Amino acid sequence: MAPPPVSLDPAVEAFIASRRVGHLATADADGTPHVIPVCYAYDRGLVYSALDLKPKRVPSRELKRVRNIRANPRVALVVDDYSEEWDALAYVLIQGQATILESGAERDRAETLLREKYEQYAEMLQEGCATLRITPERVVAWGRPFAP
Amino acid sequence: MAPPPVSLDPAVEAFIASRRVGHLATADADGTPHVIPVCYAYDRGLVYSALDLKPKRVPSRELKRVRNIRANPRVALVVDDYSEEWDALAYVLIQGQATILESGAERDRAETLLREKYEQYAEMLQEGCATLRITPERVVAWGRPFAP
Repeated sequence: MAPPPVSLDPAVEAFIASRRVGHLATADADGTPHVIPVCYAYDRGLVYSALDLKPKRVPSRELKRVRNIRANPRVALVVDDYSEEWDALAYVLIQGQATILESGAERDRAETLLREKYEQYAEMLQEGCATLRITPERVVAWGRPFAP
Repeated sequence: MAPPPVSLDPAVEAFIASRRVGHLATADADGTPHVIPVCYAYDRGLVYSALDLKPKRVPSRELKRVRNIRANPRVALVVDDYSEEWDALAYVLIQGQATILESGAERDRAETLLREKYEQYAEMLQEGCATLRITPERVVAWGRPFAP
């Protein structure tokens, strides 16, 4: 079971759900940060990202982000819009806890959501892929879509 | 003086120099990651990012990334291309040390480079802005532009 997530404003939820790529930051036990672009699915306050793609060049347990999360489950994910019109810059920053889902109903649902959002996964996602769950603990939304 | 940076492949340098936004990850003393989009300039193995914009809503010393860097100077910056054609996905991940430049010839040059790259700074950058320098220690380039 997922822990109860923080409540997100509908505008923030819509922003996260509609974007195609986020950037996931982890840190190892020594506090050395790492950050990569990730595809993700948003579902009722939680964020999911797949770990096993085809061709499987690196077992998921050996991915740097997975090794970092096993040592330190705190993560940050930012979803943002870049534009040369800087009035249109916007981001949502999520800080929270990451959990690696190896099996179970929640993992199955996350895989379905990821396949629905990204048609590319039809060919590129391992069935039964390990999946990262991010449980937001602190969320900051910045930019015009979130102006009061 | 900057410490001697690692040597970067010309294709990696060209990729970094030509993109408009990167994502900067820091971690606080407890290892909690933080990540935001940043504009930056690349110069001979080093990356610079401005800290003081106009209007100055938050003094640079109070920015979360600055507080993190003062507690833990290790940072990661990723510059990447997203595309719905996943064959075209690419990124350069830099892990290294961050230094905050408050004054001096290197800071002055970084401000000039940032103003040359982003015309938006003509109105939005504080003159004499504090500037972040990232000195790469480890660089990973992934994707077709860097295929052997």
